[in-house]
Order: sequence, then C-alpha cells, then structure tokens
Amino acid sequence: MHERGMLIVLSGPSGVGKGTVRQAMLAGDYRDFHYSVSMTTRKMRPGEVDGVDYYFRTKAEFENEIATGGMLEYAKYVDNYYGTPLKYVNETLDSGRDVLLEIEVKGAMQVREKCPDGVFIFLTPPDLGELKQRLTNRGTDDAATIDKRIKTAAEEIVMMENYDYAVVNDEVPLAVQRIERIIESEHLRVPRVIDRYKGMLKQVDMA
Amino acid sequence: MHERGMLIVLSGPSGVGKGTVRQAMLAGDYRDFHYSVSMTTRKMRPGEVDGVDYYFRTKAEFENEIATGGMLEYAKYVDNYYGTPLKYVNETLDSGRDVLLEIEVKGAMQVREKCPDGVFIFLTPPDLGELKQRLTNRGTDDAATIDKRIKTAAEEIVMMENYDYAVVNDEVPLAVQRIERIIESEHLRVPRVIDRYKGMLKQVDMA
Repeated sequence: MHERGMLIVLSGPSGVGKGTVRQAMLAGDYRDFHYSVSMTTRKMRPGEVDGVDYYFRTKAEFENEIATGGMLEYAKYVDNYYGTPLKYVNETLDSGRDVLLEIEVKGAMQVREKCPDGVFIFLTPPDLGELKQRLTNRGTDDAATIDKRIKTAAEEIVMMENYDYAVVNDEVPLAVQRIERIIESEHLRVPRVIDRYKGMLKQVDMA
Repeated sequence: MHERGMLIVLSGPSGVGKGTVRQAMLAGDYRDFHYSVSMTTRKMRPGEVDGVDYYFRTKAEFENEIATGGMLEYAKYVDNYYGTPLKYVNETLDSGRDVLLEIEVKGAMQVREKCPDGVFIFLTPPDLGELKQRLTNRGTDDAATIDKRIKTAAEEIVMMENYDYAVVNDEVPLAVQRIERIIESEHLRVPRVIDRYKGMLKQVDMA
C-alpha cells in the first residue's frame, strides 16, 4: 500500500517568475515530483515538442475535453485555450507520486475547489516599497507608470489569502529551497500519513 | 512591526526520545527559537540550576500559579507538579521569537486548546512491525512482554490524530532536520505572514 501523491500548485502574479522557479525545480537535484504538461490550442512554435512543452490540440478537441470533464482547470487567453488535463494528474497521484502544476491564479482557484488537499503556494514579488524604490532609481518609467505597476502588484498580492504558503521570489535558488522544504514538511502532515500508521497498527493486530 | 513568534510543541509517547531530540535541537546550529524552561515542585538534584533545568518552586507557590492562571499547562506525577509558566512563553512570542516546548501528550492537549495556532509535532517510534522484530530478535523479553510493549506503542500512536505533524524518530539528526524544516515552512504559511503583507500594502498607499 502506498500513499496517494501530493498535488503541488505553484502560482502567483504574472511576471513574478513562476516559470523560472519551476524550471529551476525540474533542473535541480530535488526531482521527487512529476511536472504536469499543460494542454493548449495555440500553434506549436519551432522547437516545441507535443507532450513535452504542451499537449497541442485543436479547438474542437479541447472543447470536447472540457465538455467531458477532462480538464482539471482551464482558461482562455487571446482566443486560445490553456489548461491542465485531469487524467495525467490523477494517474500520477494514484501511483503515489507528487505532481507539480505551475499555473495562473485563476486556474489555481479552480484546482483549489476540486482538490482542497493540494498544497497551494503563492510566489510573491519582494517588498513593494523596495520595488517602488528600484523602479524610481532606474528612471525608465515616469511616476504614473510606477504607481500603476505598484498598484497592480498590490492587487495581485491580495490574492495570496487563497493560498497555503507565501514564498518570496527574491532569489530563484532560495525560492526553490523554500518550496522544496514546504513539500517535505507537507508530507509529514498528520492527515497525509495517518492512514499509513493505521495500516501499521492493523498489521500488528494481525501478527 | 514584527510578527508574533511561533509556538512549537514537541510531544509524543513516553520513551520515544523527545528529550534527546530537543537537546540535539538546542545544541545544533539551528537556534532560532527559545526553549521554555518548565516549572516543578520536585526537589532540586545535585548539579541542577534553578531557571535552567527547571524553575524549582514550592507546592504552595505552584498551586498559586495554577489558581492565578499562570500555567499554560501542568500535570501532577507522583505527588509533584510539572508545568509550563505562561509568562515566559507569552513574552517571548510577543517579542517575535519562537518558543519550543517539549512536553507530555496530556500537557500538549492543554496547550492545543489555549494556543490553536501553535505547531504541534508528534514524535513517533519507527515502524511497529520492525520494533516487534527487533524486540523478538533481541531475545531479552518474552512474547507476552513484547506484545504488551507493542500494544502500548500502538495506543500511543493513535494520539497522533491531535497533532499537525508526525515525525519519525528513526535517527536523531534526521528527526531534528525534519522538525527544523517544519518550522521553516510553517513560517511561510499565509495566515502567519498575511498581516506583514497587508502592512506592506498600506505603506505603498501612504507613499
């Protein structure tokens, strides 16, 4: 008997560096999870591989997946669908392995409803005051643009309330280490391990 | 403004090695927490220091603490009181530092009621089947004694359900590392950091 794998959802405001952190996690030594490849209807670009970068599908195929409940989450951006096929996620979790999703905030909220026992990690930009100072010192944006950028960042940070953990992406290796430690600790949470212990107690009764 | 410190409660069945793990945590590099010294009415032994090993108090003094709400938790063992004074714990938490308690299961449940946002870690013995095999192979206990010891261990493991995390004490350095990572991860939990971010957002509004 093995425990079901854990669903790890990495999300956060646009531009915070989710993709970079995810790539660093996959490239690193810590590989105890499987990355779920997204499905899209956008055209394959040169160098991209179906099933590696994305599952490339037609609009009709994608809409059929939606209609038959095959998508864990999805959204439409500029006429193209993007989403996470449910089948791979479920099969991998059932086999006892963890699954990592790196998705937009909207999609993460869809996943939260379907998988409340997932681990939801919100990647945040470093300190806003510092960000403002940095933008001001750089001198490439006028005050109005800087204020708008700060306001957008502030609005996005409010979404953090729907997540389990907040990880600052100050430096990618540090963010990766924090996420890895969250994953390790979550595997020790009682609701996740209690069945294993109960099984152990039964074994003893039978012995 | 600083965040309030985190209360970390290390507990588990008797004989599982709580004291050894706590000592290893205090001796190690990872010292970002303060250990709460217990209070007792038992006699000071040679070499012990008041305020270091325990706060040594008379029975009347201890009962006065109980009566005036000065104890976070307490219990009586063999005519002597043992417990955790509330004052040090609160002052340390208020100053933004973490507090580590290493206490018995009964006391931990009292703390859980008063401090639901504490982190409750249950130290468990390694696999019971293995434990039984080990006891059998050792050949020093008869079958009935072994069964009784296994049964006691099994009963104690059931208490795990009241905790947040289960940490196997297979090897002390590994157990310590797991606990340290739990502490680090817990500091990233959204309910613990959200106020800091809200403060950051306010700062930006005022700027």
